[in-house]
Amino acid sequence: MTARLNFGQLSIAASAALLFSAAPALAAPPGSPAEAVDVFIGTGGDGHTFPGASRPFGMVQLSPDTQHRHFRQSYPWASGYNYADSSILGFSHTHFSGSGHSDLGDVLLMPYSGETKLEPGYPERPFSGYRSRFSHDQEKAEPGYYAVRLKDHEVDVELTASERVGLHRYKFKAGEPAKVLLDLRTSIYNYDEKNLWARLRVRNSTTITGMRETRGWAPGRQVHFAIQFSRPIDTRQLLNREEAIPYRGFAPPGKTPGDKALVEGKQLMADFNFGVPNDGTLLVKVALSAVSEDNAIANLAEMPGWDFDQERERAGKAWNDALGAVKVEAEGPMRTKFYTALYHTMLAPSLFMDIDGSYRGPDNQVHKAKNFRFHSTFSLWDTYRALHPLLTIVAPEQRNADFVNSLIASQQHSPYGILPVWQFHGLETWCMIGYHAVPVIADAYMKGIRGFDADKALAAMTASAEYGPYGGLEHYMKLGYVPIDLEKEAASKTVEYAFDDWTIARMAEKMGKKDIAARYYKRAQNYRNVFDKETGFIRARKSTGEFRTPFNPELSNFGSDYTEGSAWQYSWYMPHDNAGLISLLGGDTKLVEKIDQVFDAKVDETVYAHMEDISGLIGHYAHGNEPSHHVAYLYNYAGAPWRTQERLANIMATQYSDKPDGLSGNDDLGQMSAWYAFTALGFYPVAPGSNEYVIGRPFLDKATLNLPNGKRFTVRADNLSSGNGYVGRVTLNGKPLTRTFIRHEDIMAGGELVFTMQATPNKDWGKEQNARPYTQTRY
Amino acid sequence: MTARLNFGQLSIAASAALLFSAAPALAAPPGSPAEAVDVFIGTGGDGHTFPGASRPFGMVQLSPDTQHRHFRQSYPWASGYNYADSSILGFSHTHFSGSGHSDLGDVLLMPYSGETKLEPGYPERPFSGYRSRFSHDQEKAEPGYYAVRLKDHEVDVELTASERVGLHRYKFKAGEPAKVLLDLRTSIYNYDEKNLWARLRVRNSTTITGMRETRGWAPGRQVHFAIQFSRPIDTRQLLNREEAIPYRGFAPPGKTPGDKALVEGKQLMADFNFGVPNDGTLLVKVALSAVSEDNAIANLAEMPGWDFDQERERAGKAWNDALGAVKVEAEGPMRTKFYTALYHTMLAPSLFMDIDGSYRGPDNQVHKAKNFRFHSTFSLWDTYRALHPLLTIVAPEQRNADFVNSLIASQQHSPYGILPVWQFHGLETWCMIGYHAVPVIADAYMKGIRGFDADKALAAMTASAEYGPYGGLEHYMKLGYVPIDLEKEAASKTVEYAFDDWTIARMAEKMGKKDIAARYYKRAQNYRNVFDKETGFIRARKSTGEFRTPFNPELSNFGSDYTEGSAWQYSWYMPHDNAGLISLLGGDTKLVEKIDQVFDAKVDETVYAHMEDISGLIGHYAHGNEPSHHVAYLYNYAGAPWRTQERLANIMATQYSDKPDGLSGNDDLGQMSAWYAFTALGFYPVAPGSNEYVIGRPFLDKATLNLPNGKRFTVRADNLSSGNGYVGRVTLNGKPLTRTFIRHEDIMAGGELVFTMQATPNKDWGKEQNARPYTQTRY
Repeated sequence: MTARLNFGQLSIAASAALLFSAAPALAAPPGSPAEAVDVFIGTGGDGHTFPGASRPFGMVQLSPDTQHRHFRQSYPWASGYNYADSSILGFSHTHFSGSGHSDLGDVLLMPYSGETKLEPGYPERPFSGYRSRFSHDQEKAEPGYYAVRLKDHEVDVELTASERVGLHRYKFKAGEPAKVLLDLRTSIYNYDEKNLWARLRVRNSTTITGMRETRGWAPGRQVHFAIQFSRPIDTRQLLNREEAIPYRGFAPPGKTPGDKALVEGKQLMADFNFGVPNDGTLLVKVALSAVSEDNAIANLAEMPGWDFDQERERAGKAWNDALGAVKVEAEGPMRTKFYTALYHTMLAPSLFMDIDGSYRGPDNQVHKAKNFRFHSTFSLWDTYRALHPLLTIVAPEQRNADFVNSLIASQQHSPYGILPVWQFHGLETWCMIGYHAVPVIADAYMKGIRGFDADKALAAMTASAEYGPYGGLEHYMKLGYVPIDLEKEAASKTVEYAFDDWTIARMAEKMGKKDIAARYYKRAQNYRNVFDKETGFIRARKSTGEFRTPFNPELSNFGSDYTEGSAWQYSWYMPHDNAGLISLLGGDTKLVEKIDQVFDAKVDETVYAHMEDISGLIGHYAHGNEPSHHVAYLYNYAGAPWRTQERLANIMATQYSDKPDGLSGNDDLGQMSAWYAFTALGFYPVAPGSNEYVIGRPFLDKATLNLPNGKRFTVRADNLSSGNGYVGRVTLNGKPLTRTFIRHEDIMAGGELVFTMQATPNKDWGKEQNARPYTQTRY
Repeated sequence: MTARLNFGQLSIAASAALLFSAAPALAAPPGSPAEAVDVFIGTGGDGHTFPGASRPFGMVQLSPDTQHRHFRQSYPWASGYNYADSSILGFSHTHFSGSGHSDLGDVLLMPYSGETKLEPGYPERPFSGYRSRFSHDQEKAEPGYYAVRLKDHEVDVELTASERVGLHRYKFKAGEPAKVLLDLRTSIYNYDEKNLWARLRVRNSTTITGMRETRGWAPGRQVHFAIQFSRPIDTRQLLNREEAIPYRGFAPPGKTPGDKALVEGKQLMADFNFGVPNDGTLLVKVALSAVSEDNAIANLAEMPGWDFDQERERAGKAWNDALGAVKVEAEGPMRTKFYTALYHTMLAPSLFMDIDGSYRGPDNQVHKAKNFRFHSTFSLWDTYRALHPLLTIVAPEQRNADFVNSLIASQQHSPYGILPVWQFHGLETWCMIGYHAVPVIADAYMKGIRGFDADKALAAMTASAEYGPYGGLEHYMKLGYVPIDLEKEAASKTVEYAFDDWTIARMAEKMGKKDIAARYYKRAQNYRNVFDKETGFIRARKSTGEFRTPFNPELSNFGSDYTEGSAWQYSWYMPHDNAGLISLLGGDTKLVEKIDQVFDAKVDETVYAHMEDISGLIGHYAHGNEPSHHVAYLYNYAGAPWRTQERLANIMATQYSDKPDGLSGNDDLGQMSAWYAFTALGFYPVAPGSNEYVIGRPFLDKATLNLPNGKRFTVRADNLSSGNGYVGRVTLNGKPLTRTFIRHEDIMAGGELVFTMQATPNKDWGKEQNARPYTQTRY
């Protein structure tokens, strides 16, 4: 027994050596952007990213799931994978990158050897089910590629993907039959009865199709799929694991699970045995479709061949092309952190359309996209802040237009006639607050992105901003604020609506629609209605006009005035009118004082402990959650950009690392990473729609933006070092830049932004009023 | 209080008078076929028909449901309606006509007055819910039209339909607001959790769309619908009545049910209030689609106007055209029974295709019909016997070709690659036995019906007959019989397969495919393998070859050798080779003896009491179930047609009446009625595929068949009276007919079949071998 075990271990080591040591480590060319990415950053801690394989903005995001099905607490497994785990459940085809809440994990495959076990078993009890232990030593990944050795099954797994098709390569132990389990029961964020319905069907000896419909975060979601194997199935079982199956007396043909051509039910599984492959290898393609099994089969055409290495190379090239939007010169960890952040900004919104253009919209009906590619997974409360603005610089104009067209199409399909709030797989989740598709569209339009119907877009935006039943808008329109007695989290809603309104005004103004502009510029000032001069905080009012009492500025729980935040976090949210805030507070100094208090407060760790999303704390500043993201940049508006520079150095040093737990909070579909990318470049879009980026300080020696229009814009930081954390001077195209922001047009024109860094603050630069970034009161 | 009540009662009487007395009773022209129909025949007893409105073979079959939702025993409500009930639950849009098992009852609407009650309440407790009492005095119906007064709500309801759209007209009490409940929870054959998912959506002030997906007899069935009201909705509530709704925290916009633009869930309802109509009238259109809500909206185009009377007239005309296929001269009750039977033969298979040609097939995928109209609801174990053969005479060739094309398309879509068994709404239920789509296609082909691809059809037929996993076919093909130790109900399966096989042989032979014909003629003799010479019965053998013991020829329970039958019922089922049966039994006299024993046996009523479907007993003969249907005609094969004539007189007199309980068993989608129509005409298709109809005796003075080819064939019964129950002589086109069958070609050529009836048997007619109908051994 001992001898056998030893032999087994030797065998594992030898095989592992083949994939994990002897072979070239990763395919990405040395020095390429993709090679610099460490996809494991964010997979630990609260980052909620996944290490699996996809194309940029790909529909299939194929990744290992390590979550423990028997745990009710799902937060650590929002992406299916947690770096702290030591066993893998299987490989599924849909994942969120960095979401707080979660879903997906569709079509889980698990190659295995030995006895068939239909339950996953327990991580703490190896061989208790089909789960397998793995070790990070035997796990490798790069953009578009993931590999791991399943220790318990002695199977090497490699994954890659095209846009709609995941490709698996399994290498089994020599002489062992190739076996694969398909578990349609498992999901990310499981709960009882999540599966409404599922179907599995044998199409021929190498093809299986099926679907499942789930009641998860997006209720009634359908995922259809087609699975193609590189070898004919030798024996198979299609199973429904439900205990009480109605109408069992009327059974489809087939006495044994191996006879079944189709199973339907709520708890489906399949077990496939392919016999012993000569080379030990089995490849599996999985195509997805939201529309039908037939469409999933059609989507397989995207990947006609069976050359895994070629597909992996294609995926790698797609990533290098995408990440090549920025060429960075920086030292190892900084380069890694930057490109990993950039990688994480290119996973969502993701393609969600079959090759024939059909997709499922928020009405759960099938539509066909004309002249655009439908995308979904819009985590808008997060991503309107920095992710979408970043993508206007680093992603092709067509992709940005696709986003806008997808939002407009969604509004037109919406049963409510409004733009998406938190949409994935075409469906609305009603998660978080605001109508933040509005700033995404306005920002794109203001920046000159075309390829969509601006009139339709503006109509969709105003329809969303004026839909009374949504989030207290009826009262907001009447009272000028959302009343807390009629609508929860009313303070946050009021200030976020006001910002969104301002972006409508901006776009309407640019389109020459003066009436709309005037109406929304007025609404944009509504943040004032919830500012309490007495306490100096944004607070919720009741419909009678009084502020709700008692008031505790540290309170952030459900039922508070705020959404995932406290007064200390939400009181500085009028990014379009920071001059207004300054005047409400009583001057520049007051703002600086307040922001200093935010960062420097001694906050008892229990204050925010009940809110999973409020993490990455520096005082009250919570870098792990979005309401704080613009706050460090606010000093610029008070003429004190050197204070911003100090805070940024601290945030960059404490909230990001090149380790698996290197994100201090959920990446939120790329928003945390977009913040990092912008900040590393030296500027940040405090008010999307303003076409301005507020200058912080660069963290990269040099970065060249290869712009969508073919031009180049270089950001250089002379004298950058850990000791030289302050901006001494700035030049744009050789001329001194006295303002503390740059315009989108400055970047798009191409050119060079040069920072000269120094050890001490330059307190003069940016002090003057006319140096400061946009605020509405200038109009 | 008393005064008010009295006033209310007066008001009921007055309003009822308007619809039910003063107005012309029914719209069908006097003397027209439709006017002769009594749609209530079969709605009582075990008939399981429904009295509601549809077009011939229409997709929407809109009818009142009286079933008691809180009863678990559903059999009396297989069509939703039972004449014995005195309260109505509502009006739903899909129903089976005469099924044993059941489902459907989709999209239930209930107009009401007074307080809103969201539960149906109990029949025995008036006003305990939204149910309403009604009385048959205040209920009227004709083909394509149904009307009833809802006593408790003081609402007059009228229903009519086009092919895909149901039209309701509600007349409310003067000055009362028009209110309508939509209950998406209720179904026919309810059980807990039948609804997998449902959706309701407000499209505009007059239009609601939605869907529901159920796990009933056909699992995973989707019904989409569009509801249009003639008046704008004044106030509304969309509700999900589930107790535990997951993700309740992420709620769609709308604080109140009236704000909701959409609800999703498992237990949906809606309540609509339209204010007070000037004329008290509200009209409602409901279009169905299996494909999508958008398609349901498109199907509304079929009925653009709001003229109820015109739609009713159109429906009536469609029925008169269809029923006009036979012009009958007979006395009142006989005429009524005949046309009612003919009416019941034209409700299924029904259209199941959107106006754009799209439909859902047995793979639950969406397909598009090319050059045919997809039909579904194939109760084939019942209907291959007489319904489909009848429709080859009384329905247009195109309709018959549509049936065949629908069967072929279903086989091509089938995950199993086989023809439908018991299909509805495109989906397979796997109910009953055999591959009886095969004789339907063969019968059509043999009769010269074209418009389908015969090669594809034959391929579909052999694929079905050779699909090993289905119903023991693997063993049947190897052993020549289905072995009872490996497959239940093996004796019934063997004999039915053998018949189906014979029809394949017939069609293959006619197509010139000699090999296939030879192979299947051989298989057609397999009935011999389960004939036990010792007992003289068909019995089940084990795979080892012995007959299973113990043997009790009266045994018919689940687990017996038979399907819904006993040895006494199944031992005469080789309709293609009755000469073979005669020789196995030992001669003509033996057959006559055996069949006499069937009819004349004194059978204890407990023998078949446990089988709901075995009803209409005369000895062991069970007219209420299909295995007996050909038995009375078997005397002809022994040269004793006068004995058939006697038995038919008895069956016609005891098993059918013009009362609600006028069907002695489930109508089974028209099979019981087709038996009646054929038998009344004077002949019956004992062996579909033979192109022969075995002559019984006529029950109508005169019937003229207006044939699909434009010709006419008249059947006359001279000297017919209750005392003259025997056929004296028969002439065909003036020439004596010595054979006791007529050929399909005889009918289609047009002409006249004249019976001369007499009081005593003519024992010579049909005695000779060459007078007898087809049996296989002639080949």
